Amino acid sequence: MRIIEGGVCAVPGVKAYGKRDENNNGLAIITGKGNAVGVFAQNRIRAAPVIVMNERLPGVMNAIIANSGCANAFTGERGLEDAKRMAQLVADELGVNSKSVGVASTGIIGHYVDMDWIEEHVKEVMDGLTSEPGGSEAAARAIMTTDTILKQVAVEVDGVRIGGMAKGSGMVEPNMNTVLVFIYTDADFSYDVLYKCLKTAVDDSFNMIVVDGDASTNDMALLTAVGKGRISEHHFQEGLNFVCTELAKMIARDGEGATKLIEVNISGAISKDDARRAAKAVVRSLLVKTAVYGESPNWGRIVSAIGRSGADVEADKITLEFSDGVNVVTLVKEGNIIEGVLDQARALMARDAIVIKADLGLGSEGARAWGCDLTCDYVRINAEYMT
Amino acid sequence: MRIIEGGVCAVPGVKAYGKRDENNNGLAIITGKGNAVGVFAQNRIRAAPVIVMNERLPGVMNAIIANSGCANAFTGERGLEDAKRMAQLVADELGVNSKSVGVASTGIIGHYVDMDWIEEHVKEVMDGLTSEPGGSEAAARAIMTTDTILKQVAVEVDGVRIGGMAKGSGMVEPNMNTVLVFIYTDADFSYDVLYKCLKTAVDDSFNMIVVDGDASTNDMALLTAVGKGRISEHHFQEGLNFVCTELAKMIARDGEGATKLIEVNISGAISKDDARRAAKAVVRSLLVKTAVYGESPNWGRIVSAIGRSGADVEADKITLEFSDGVNVVTLVKEGNIIEGVLDQARALMARDAIVIKADLGLGSEGARAWGCDLTCDYVRINAEYMT
Repeated sequence: MRIIEGGVCAVPGVKAYGKRDENNNGLAIITGKGNAVGVFAQNRIRAAPVIVMNERLPGVMNAIIANSGCANAFTGERGLEDAKRMAQLVADELGVNSKSVGVASTGIIGHYVDMDWIEEHVKEVMDGLTSEPGGSEAAARAIMTTDTILKQVAVEVDGVRIGGMAKGSGMVEPNMNTVLVFIYTDADFSYDVLYKCLKTAVDDSFNMIVVDGDASTNDMALLTAVGKGRISEHHFQEGLNFVCTELAKMIARDGEGATKLIEVNISGAISKDDARRAAKAVVRSLLVKTAVYGESPNWGRIVSAIGRSGADVEADKITLEFSDGVNVVTLVKEGNIIEGVLDQARALMARDAIVIKADLGLGSEGARAWGCDLTCDYVRINAEYMT
Repeated sequence: MRIIEGGVCAVPGVKAYGKRDENNNGLAIITGKGNAVGVFAQNRIRAAPVIVMNERLPGVMNAIIANSGCANAFTGERGLEDAKRMAQLVADELGVNSKSVGVASTGIIGHYVDMDWIEEHVKEVMDGLTSEPGGSEAAARAIMTTDTILKQVAVEVDGVRIGGMAKGSGMVEPNMNTVLVFIYTDADFSYDVLYKCLKTAVDDSFNMIVVDGDASTNDMALLTAVGKGRISEHHFQEGLNFVCTELAKMIARDGEGATKLIEVNISGAISKDDARRAAKAVVRSLLVKTAVYGESPNWGRIVSAIGRSGADVEADKITLEFSDGVNVVTLVKEGNIIEGVLDQARALMARDAIVIKADLGLGSEGARAWGCDLTCDYVRINAEYMT
């Protein structure tokens, strides 16, 4: 497996382009025909595009149209009409059935999509479609909201390519701040295999940066297979896992107002579920997040978060380490506090990516979760966000 | 029912006193003999005093000793010895069995209690014990950590008195920041009735300011019945509910760095569980908390939080109102967005206590939860908290 340039455009047969204006309205279109599957928001309040796409997938898709600025959520019948109309606009340009065009939205809840603006810009974006790397970049940029970094990655495995882009940055509760993921591959698989692989990859990546397994009204991850490439399901899964994990880490690192990426690595859990629960509890703890921001190796908050996660835990079995990826400092060894290491741990926390490793010492299951620190900038961004 | 002065000292037979030094070590002692029951932290990692008290209650208690500055959590066998020794010190002064003395701690995790400091000050606090209102105040003040306001309340119902004090202020995750509650009454009830009443009152008060039903390593609420007063169980429950709810609201209002109290009032839920879940989801949403801080009537975030709470919800049934306790602004009526009211809602949010009322329109169950806004000061307090 090797990382390659070009995002979704790294996949033969895929074109993309996007456009945004100074009022934070954005429009992205991606084309490429093939079997498509999706994983959607679990929120009981579902945005119009999520309702529409949930009906359309699995199915053959010719394109995806996505807008930023308006979530098209809590918009009733008119919202559904608008979502379908967005797909229709692209379908008309391509001369295909409108049900073969995907639609996604991100932005403010409770407002109608500015359809005039969309209609005005569809032609322009269609005209810009390209298989050059710049196309994927323009599309990924068009769907950014509070995102500060562009999120795309592509890999080649056994001659097959997998390219993806993502949008999302509300790390403290990322599930409230839409995560959109569009992945393309030229591997050839049935809907069943594609869905199984996507679900598996999402569970270990985007669902591990999500605070508590909930989801926003608008979240969706779409995977479209546009080619005839042959690859073992196992290797394809590895490639897809890599793409999803890298995009998920980009989202975590781009947490609103964040200065540091936090990776929590749980091992020694009795069950996979316990490991996930413990990892997520640490990542979502505001006290851990603020401690990381303050570069304070406050391991007591980590142990307490694990303790209240619901996972089976015994205080005298826990081993806790901090790492920056290279150096490792052990703070607790099988329940015993290691004295005299706090200064080393503090120095390590000055780095911009912190790994918290906890071995529960009870079993052999593990999980990883990602998050970021909580800063005043997060509060400012979200206090000032318009209604 | 009428509110009276004096905190726990309003109850005949109860004396209290407390002391704190400039290093944030505090010591409180309360005396009063009677049947005692307790509700404890659900965290798998339990502090030493919680383990000790869980064994001792229900039982007859003669006194409670509580320290602030050190949680005595994650301290192994030595921690258990220290907790028992704290009780022993008071028992020796009173000439009673040490198992009849309650013990509680709040402060930093992973450090041993400074027993020298405790032993040095027990005599001094014992000498200060008084049934005057100042005694309750001194004790309540001694167990404050990041608390900025003193929390105590007392009521008289049918001639019986119920007085309580509380400590706690980490509103964003209060369950990580210990909540200690000590309540006394001169009503005469069996352990069973006392426990049932305490559990009921705690579930509707302290457990509704807790973010997610989890608990810190040190949380405890103790109720001791020191007298022979006669009152119906029903009226006693009402009085106890009032005491617990008032103390809980004080804790919410005193959230670290908070500027506003948020009350979420859910009605029309299919089940009580749904109502609690929905209310808590709104109170714990960082996006709602930051919106309240920014005085932004961002109802979309509220609807989304309810939607992902796990409660049964239908978008076109929800009615949403903001209130300051007097004025009411309806933002959503049975799923329809009311236009032109955002300015009124915004004006109302300038107040320091905001009520968010959501009628789910599906059933007849309700619940209330309390929280506070999320501010930069919260981040600062917790980023700088020592390790």
